[in-house]
Amino acid sequence: MPDPLVLSIDAMGGDHGPTVVVPALVRARKFLGDVRFLLHGEEAALRTALGRTPAIASLCDVRHTDKVIAGDAKPAHAMRRGAGSSMWNAVESVKAGEAQAAVSAGNTGALMAISRLLLRMTADLERPALVANWPTSRGVTAVLDVGANIVCDAERLVEFAIMGAAYHHAVHGSRRPTVGLLNVGTETEKGHDDVRGADHLLRDHHFDFDYRGFVEGDDIAKGSVDVIVTDGFTGNVALKTAEGLARFFRNEVRGALSRGVLAPIGAFIAQRSLKKMRERLDPSTVNGGPFLGLKGIVVKSHGGADARGFAAAVRLAGDLANSDFAAEIDRNLNRLTTAAAASPDGLGTEESTVV
Amino acid sequence: MPDPLVLSIDAMGGDHGPTVVVPALVRARKFLGDVRFLLHGEEAALRTALGRTPAIASLCDVRHTDKVIAGDAKPAHAMRRGAGSSMWNAVESVKAGEAQAAVSAGNTGALMAISRLLLRMTADLERPALVANWPTSRGVTAVLDVGANIVCDAERLVEFAIMGAAYHHAVHGSRRPTVGLLNVGTETEKGHDDVRGADHLLRDHHFDFDYRGFVEGDDIAKGSVDVIVTDGFTGNVALKTAEGLARFFRNEVRGALSRGVLAPIGAFIAQRSLKKMRERLDPSTVNGGPFLGLKGIVVKSHGGADARGFAAAVRLAGDLANSDFAAEIDRNLNRLTTAAAASPDGLGTEESTVV
Repeated sequence: MPDPLVLSIDAMGGDHGPTVVVPALVRARKFLGDVRFLLHGEEAALRTALGRTPAIASLCDVRHTDKVIAGDAKPAHAMRRGAGSSMWNAVESVKAGEAQAAVSAGNTGALMAISRLLLRMTADLERPALVANWPTSRGVTAVLDVGANIVCDAERLVEFAIMGAAYHHAVHGSRRPTVGLLNVGTETEKGHDDVRGADHLLRDHHFDFDYRGFVEGDDIAKGSVDVIVTDGFTGNVALKTAEGLARFFRNEVRGALSRGVLAPIGAFIAQRSLKKMRERLDPSTVNGGPFLGLKGIVVKSHGGADARGFAAAVRLAGDLANSDFAAEIDRNLNRLTTAAAASPDGLGTEESTVV
Repeated sequence: MPDPLVLSIDAMGGDHGPTVVVPALVRARKFLGDVRFLLHGEEAALRTALGRTPAIASLCDVRHTDKVIAGDAKPAHAMRRGAGSSMWNAVESVKAGEAQAAVSAGNTGALMAISRLLLRMTADLERPALVANWPTSRGVTAVLDVGANIVCDAERLVEFAIMGAAYHHAVHGSRRPTVGLLNVGTETEKGHDDVRGADHLLRDHHFDFDYRGFVEGDDIAKGSVDVIVTDGFTGNVALKTAEGLARFFRNEVRGALSRGVLAPIGAFIAQRSLKKMRERLDPSTVNGGPFLGLKGIVVKSHGGADARGFAAAVRLAGDLANSDFAAEIDRNLNRLTTAAAASPDGLGTEESTVV
């Protein structure tokens, strides 16, 4: 591993490019200790942005390319034609061992396809899993998968549990993360064959986390466990339902506070408190989702993230790179596959019970 | 059909029994016109409650039973041993043609099992579908299934669309309800085989509603469509996730308004407005979910509903009974099955593409 930490940055991805990326590095650096950045993108634009922030300029190597993956490019197209783009080169630097992690705010599908092509998968997944960092009453719960793997059998769900626990351990510092499996009830007979199969596998093995059984939708916001595991279809619907509800609720609060004679005074006074609350719950403070299951660290930042948001994604990449995240995942995946090899009936039947 | 409207009430179900049920009938009656109630339960308790409300007493026939289904009874047990209970008899009155609809705040699983046993299913579903009446920016969106049918193929989803549209038309008055299919994106290639299969079926047929294609989780709170269709697993997770988030958000608002020097004044003034908002979003004002897909109308009220909540469920039962709900469902189900019979390949293949 190179020393110091080297992070590879797609400086052209997202809505803002270098004007957000470079100021974000200034923020992120404070949390990262000894670090260098490889900036992939248009040299002229990058030099201009770096000219305004000399403190960070000395930590950056600019790798010029004028090729950029479009925000609406199809993943297949990005894989075939993306070579030499800022996103491709950012991931390529990780593959080449020049950097320990890559960060991009570009097209999610394209980044996933390129990462999978260049770095390969470590788990037996079709695609990397996406993690949502969900603010809860107790902290942050990692929910996965939130959209990449639409159909998941029992083994895939167990892989999510393994990866999610290693992620939570690395990023949120939980010593022995608690893990729950999302279902429609907590009794063992609830749900479909895949969640029941995953529940059996999780109970039957000894992993480096504390499996707590089934949890329900309302356990997400409660923060009942550190990691919540679900298939990408259900996870995506849950996440977007919550996003929609949060927006709805904010509008309702604003509306409620602007009605009535004395309301404007109340609203004025309440405003600051509510603003603080919004900031705490703002996705940009928990921005940045890693792609889990790759042989290498790639973090996706929200396309519309501001400097604070992108900095959070960069910091996340650094935290993962500085942890024993990859080794922990390998160790637990081995426990799963060793057990499967030892008892072929145990795991083999899961495949045939998929409904 | 009997004239006037007759509603059959399980007066013993839920946390409160007759002390909530009878006052609820006083409220519900105002909206129902010419109505009579069959009250199933303990005669002494019912007479006491009715003694306090003479106006409603003359509209009620008390049908004594001292047998009650426990709140934690297993559905299978309720089916085998439930005959003669207040819940069973309430549903039995619908089967016998004495009443046009039944309402119970009792055990959901037991009510579902008994209803299915006594009334039978009209659609080709394993279980009746549960509907959530979801408050949105534009009104109320009906989301189904929210927990009864965990695994759903394409045809089941189309049946939900048909039933949900007829329900929204009957209860919320939409002339030609708009219907969306919940997915992880709006492009036609998104999702798994079941949602894509349902999308094809919904596009290929002419139903009495306006099918708008795929919608995403955030469309629920937006109220983008009148009816949102999904399998019972996803729907249940979405609903409970939203419930958890709403509770979390309320606590956050309360917390935010109690911090800071001037905050208490703001909180005091804001309190009334926020209380009004909570009432608007309170489940008890949209309490009562029908079991869709039965040959007969059964409405489940929340077990903890107060008189206002139970009244909403009773009113819902009345609105459904007074509408052409059942005929509309039959008409649209016929269109689906006629088309399936005419083109066996079209529907037959859906079965084999379930993943």
